[in-house]
Amino acid sequence: MTPPPLLESTLSREELFRGHFLTAWRDTVQLPDGAQATREYVTHPGAVVVVPLLSQPDGSLRVVLERQYRYPVAQVMIEFPAGKLELGEDPLLCAQRELAEETGYRATQWAKAGVMHLAIAYSTEVIHIYFAKGLVPGDTQLDEGEFLQVFQASPDELMDWCRNGQVTDAKTLTCCLWLQQLLTGAWGLEWTSQPAQVAPDL
Amino acid sequence: MTPPPLLESTLSREELFRGHFLTAWRDTVQLPDGAQATREYVTHPGAVVVVPLLSQPDGSLRVVLERQYRYPVAQVMIEFPAGKLELGEDPLLCAQRELAEETGYRATQWAKAGVMHLAIAYSTEVIHIYFAKGLVPGDTQLDEGEFLQVFQASPDELMDWCRNGQVTDAKTLTCCLWLQQLLTGAWGLEWTSQPAQVAPDL
Repeated sequence: MTPPPLLESTLSREELFRGHFLTAWRDTVQLPDGAQATREYVTHPGAVVVVPLLSQPDGSLRVVLERQYRYPVAQVMIEFPAGKLELGEDPLLCAQRELAEETGYRATQWAKAGVMHLAIAYSTEVIHIYFAKGLVPGDTQLDEGEFLQVFQASPDELMDWCRNGQVTDAKTLTCCLWLQQLLTGAWGLEWTSQPAQVAPDL
Repeated sequence: MTPPPLLESTLSREELFRGHFLTAWRDTVQLPDGAQATREYVTHPGAVVVVPLLSQPDGSLRVVLERQYRYPVAQVMIEFPAGKLELGEDPLLCAQRELAEETGYRATQWAKAGVMHLAIAYSTEVIHIYFAKGLVPGDTQLDEGEFLQVFQASPDELMDWCRNGQVTDAKTLTCCLWLQQLLTGAWGLEWTSQPAQVAPDL
């Protein structure tokens, strides 16, 4: 049996609204069977998330996490540090900037794990996933209107929170798949050394 | 050091637009320091995702997946079966309905793994995560304008695709954390038996 065709092509596009942060669109598309449908979605500049690894004197690891109130879900969420790309920004530089701004840490070694698409039914958002180690503490510099608590946990604690529902943020849960697979040795990363410099705009 | 307060409270709400599928809002909020800010977000009815497990004659497992073109990211995505809650719908009944409609399978055993929040910066969406086993094949009944390919993979194949970037859908990656932890025995599920009946509206 031949699998059904899947692709949709754009026939027209209408801007639904342009907000301070979100822009929404309604496109009319041609479906694989030739019929027409509409697709509503928001455009997003893309983002990064960072899994910061702290080596302990006994050889074990801890991770750096944040608690942040997320208004749309009306909850304080446990998350890995993350942030939006500025226009044209290199994702690695964004990851270094966000880690420094939100946690104060600069890292001497970085590795890209991959990307995730966050809400494929209605958002263009892609998140670049980085791991950071060789952490050097420093000062934070939060954006105006940004409030968060930085804390540390062991990977075992974090995995327990994923299992028992204390961690429900999809980007953080996806990072935990990577973390778990790295800790068991099932997956690997290619690390590159970076000067632990202060991010350019600090 | 006392951690900074995090909560934000709603001062006013403005509807930005009401689409066929998305509704967007801009709220003015009071920040923890008393200042004001705006929060733009879309409201979503909630959704389910199902990890369908197929027992093989040799005792191994395979999972049921879908390929679907996702217009906002302009890619054919590999995903677990998923769908939106209808108004007031029980998430388990929605999971049974979506699994049957999209893949044709009815399952005799169901377990809820947890929930994830998908895009906490700008969406209210919560996704309920279910596992299904004891699968009985049947007919699919796709929604109008819905085109997808159903296929099977081993957990090892799926994990390889997560690692090498062939799977980038955040809800599917989050399900893979659960799947991996279940397969190693690190986490468990509470299964309940359900009649493998045809979903009510089929």
